[in-house]
Amino acid sequence: MKALIISAGEGSRFRERGGKTPKQLNSLFGLTLLERVVLSAKRAGVRDFFIVTGYKAEKIEQALGNGGKYGVKIKYIHNPEWRKGNGSSVLKAKNLFAEEESFLLLMSDHIWEPQLLEEFLDKRKKCSLCIDRKISQVHDLEDATKVLVINGKVKAIGKDLKRYNAIDCGIFLCTPAIFTALEEANTSDNIFLSDGIRILARKGMIGTFDIGEHYWADIDTPQLLRKVEKYLCNSSGKSGDGPISRKFNRLFSQRLTHLLVRTKITPNSVTLLSFMIGLLSGGLFWFHSYLFGGLAAQLASIMDGVDGEIARLKLTETRFGAYFDAILDRYADAFIILGMTYSQFKVSPSPWIWIAGIGAIVGSFMSMLGKEKYIALTGKRLIVHRSDGLLKWLSSHIQGRDVRLFLIMGGGILNLVYPTILFLALISNLCAGLRLWGVKKDLNLDLNQ
Amino acid sequence: MKALIISAGEGSRFRERGGKTPKQLNSLFGLTLLERVVLSAKRAGVRDFFIVTGYKAEKIEQALGNGGKYGVKIKYIHNPEWRKGNGSSVLKAKNLFAEEESFLLLMSDHIWEPQLLEEFLDKRKKCSLCIDRKISQVHDLEDATKVLVINGKVKAIGKDLKRYNAIDCGIFLCTPAIFTALEEANTSDNIFLSDGIRILARKGMIGTFDIGEHYWADIDTPQLLRKVEKYLCNSSGKSGDGPISRKFNRLFSQRLTHLLVRTKITPNSVTLLSFMIGLLSGGLFWFHSYLFGGLAAQLASIMDGVDGEIARLKLTETRFGAYFDAILDRYADAFIILGMTYSQFKVSPSPWIWIAGIGAIVGSFMSMLGKEKYIALTGKRLIVHRSDGLLKWLSSHIQGRDVRLFLIMGGGILNLVYPTILFLALISNLCAGLRLWGVKKDLNLDLNQ
Repeated sequence: MKALIISAGEGSRFRERGGKTPKQLNSLFGLTLLERVVLSAKRAGVRDFFIVTGYKAEKIEQALGNGGKYGVKIKYIHNPEWRKGNGSSVLKAKNLFAEEESFLLLMSDHIWEPQLLEEFLDKRKKCSLCIDRKISQVHDLEDATKVLVINGKVKAIGKDLKRYNAIDCGIFLCTPAIFTALEEANTSDNIFLSDGIRILARKGMIGTFDIGEHYWADIDTPQLLRKVEKYLCNSSGKSGDGPISRKFNRLFSQRLTHLLVRTKITPNSVTLLSFMIGLLSGGLFWFHSYLFGGLAAQLASIMDGVDGEIARLKLTETRFGAYFDAILDRYADAFIILGMTYSQFKVSPSPWIWIAGIGAIVGSFMSMLGKEKYIALTGKRLIVHRSDGLLKWLSSHIQGRDVRLFLIMGGGILNLVYPTILFLALISNLCAGLRLWGVKKDLNLDLNQ
Repeated sequence: MKALIISAGEGSRFRERGGKTPKQLNSLFGLTLLERVVLSAKRAGVRDFFIVTGYKAEKIEQALGNGGKYGVKIKYIHNPEWRKGNGSSVLKAKNLFAEEESFLLLMSDHIWEPQLLEEFLDKRKKCSLCIDRKISQVHDLEDATKVLVINGKVKAIGKDLKRYNAIDCGIFLCTPAIFTALEEANTSDNIFLSDGIRILARKGMIGTFDIGEHYWADIDTPQLLRKVEKYLCNSSGKSGDGPISRKFNRLFSQRLTHLLVRTKITPNSVTLLSFMIGLLSGGLFWFHSYLFGGLAAQLASIMDGVDGEIARLKLTETRFGAYFDAILDRYADAFIILGMTYSQFKVSPSPWIWIAGIGAIVGSFMSMLGKEKYIALTGKRLIVHRSDGLLKWLSSHIQGRDVRLFLIMGGGILNLVYPTILFLALISNLCAGLRLWGVKKDLNLDLNQ
């Protein structure tokens, strides 16, 4: 799949409202808007990019180069007539794309969640437009391109449409028919992409893809850029987060993320930092400093959210990052529980304290191993069903790392270290047993084995 | 993909040589040959079966039913003229298969490794025959159907071929062209499948698929059935097994498998038994019975191979079995190390013994977690390259569960429990660190992230 990115315009509204650099070269969390388009599309599997340049063409070519630094190929097409509208820029690519069955048409100043494009391309409906039904949430509705969708087809499109039920998100899976349509529309001085789409729409040729709850934005002014920045920062949490992550940690982690995402610090450095705070917590427990040990454990838990948040905002999520985080978290947990156990043993030297500590460590490993082994075997996440009552409740309320570390903080503050160890050992191993039972039911239902 | 199984013949050679039941209903490790054909094909994704019956048709229908118990659909086609040869049985399916683009044609008395068919269907070369180049290893070469392959196409086929370079394995991906060819061949009284294939081959229409190192057998006599049984039992080990599994455990586990595979004991029961022997080992260590604790650990390791061997021989490998085995192994390891640690602590009550024990347990979990997390992230196994010298050596010589339990046996017998714990803790955590490094290199190389 090739992508054509239209990056020729002047962004006059952006400049009027105080912007200095070309719009698409403005930075959002350390990446220019244009880089975000390329990297987000890369996540969805696109590797070949063609960028149509016009206004400040050299600056754009200099900024992105041949794409090698992003692991993709980028070629440039210059449109000296860029003032004639974005339709003229699309037409410049006619010869290059005439033989393609279909290709992606993207805007250099639109940002969207990478998952949006992945889902869209998974469907691979030829000749279709991404549309947003969440009209009330669209920034700057006045300037947005409205769409009237009837029976899943584009019926009408334009900025000044009176009757509409969706907004064009600027992501279009095209066929070369668009070029003929644009040539047909090319009667006046200016020629816009939506003119071409309108002609195809009249022939009933344009399908739609509802982006559902996904987020996108057309960044037309510096004010909007700030607004989007804020929005993204506040919604950078992971969907599978546990209750403490969502309701408590995020209050702190998002502030930290907001600070750190502007620096050069990488997500993996944050992972390492979180691990080191975990070691510190273990050390503090070891030397009987329960209050600070508990607080450090909680801080490690908060930092454990920041790495992922930064990675998502900077589009630098990597599989190694996920691996590194998983291994280091497990070691940190082991060190924290070891510190707690050792200090309790020093107070009352019974081997049973060690056995409880081993139980808690084994349970914390089992929690992860049980999930990862399921993914490794089936290629999908284990979904705990409501019918597995106790496991469902434990999984969503107690079993996550966020809750475990929160309990450890509580145990440290309240000087209830041994009960905390015992509780963790019992609950996490009970969960492992229940999960084994759940997996048995789940896999037996699956006749494809 | 539909499959047509030819199961109409009398199996006269089988009966001459002392067989009593219809050939395809003879049992091999608790499954009839015909059941094996169905279940092996199911592994490769086939769900719709049509079985042509002739000799003792009712017995065969009774034995397999509608396929519900195997999670597939089976329909029967009766061929009253089965004495006219297997070609006449294939022709009976003409109307049912005339519209198919392609279908599998299988023999009811041939067995083969499920992976063979998976690989064959992955290629999905229309109209091709599985052939075996390992001519010297074919049982009963005289009676085998020989094939002359030139440039990947079947040039000639027949039992009495003088010049040949491969053997027909009885697995054929057909198009309906075979029916026309068989009708064309239907001049004499008897009509054989290979007559039809010969006609298509003359037109250059039959491709080949080299089965490589895979195993298959055409079971024509009771003697051959015994021979195959023995062969399968001796080769039921897993390809990824560690050195102790391969060179030591297998001597015992294959004998045990040979005994247990004839009983109704399920692989999951063996997994549970292996776990309980692990608990016993931990208990023996706990009460200072090092010699027997060590021997029990080794017995648990031997039994750990038996469950998989039985499952492979009975074609009852399940994903739950793999999950169950993984979780229980980890708990058994933890209990064994716990018993060792506790007994050492009783001898000299230092907390450092517990810390070493925790290190060994954490390391044993990390060993598995590091591999499973990699599979969960990438969908493939982590391959350690030669360039990661130390990790490569440790992974293949020290790091497996088989070697860990072997060292524990050694430690128990030689009364070197504490050094064993220390060694395991150091080595397994060193491996986890090196593996992290290896994964970093591996995933960074992979530009597709």
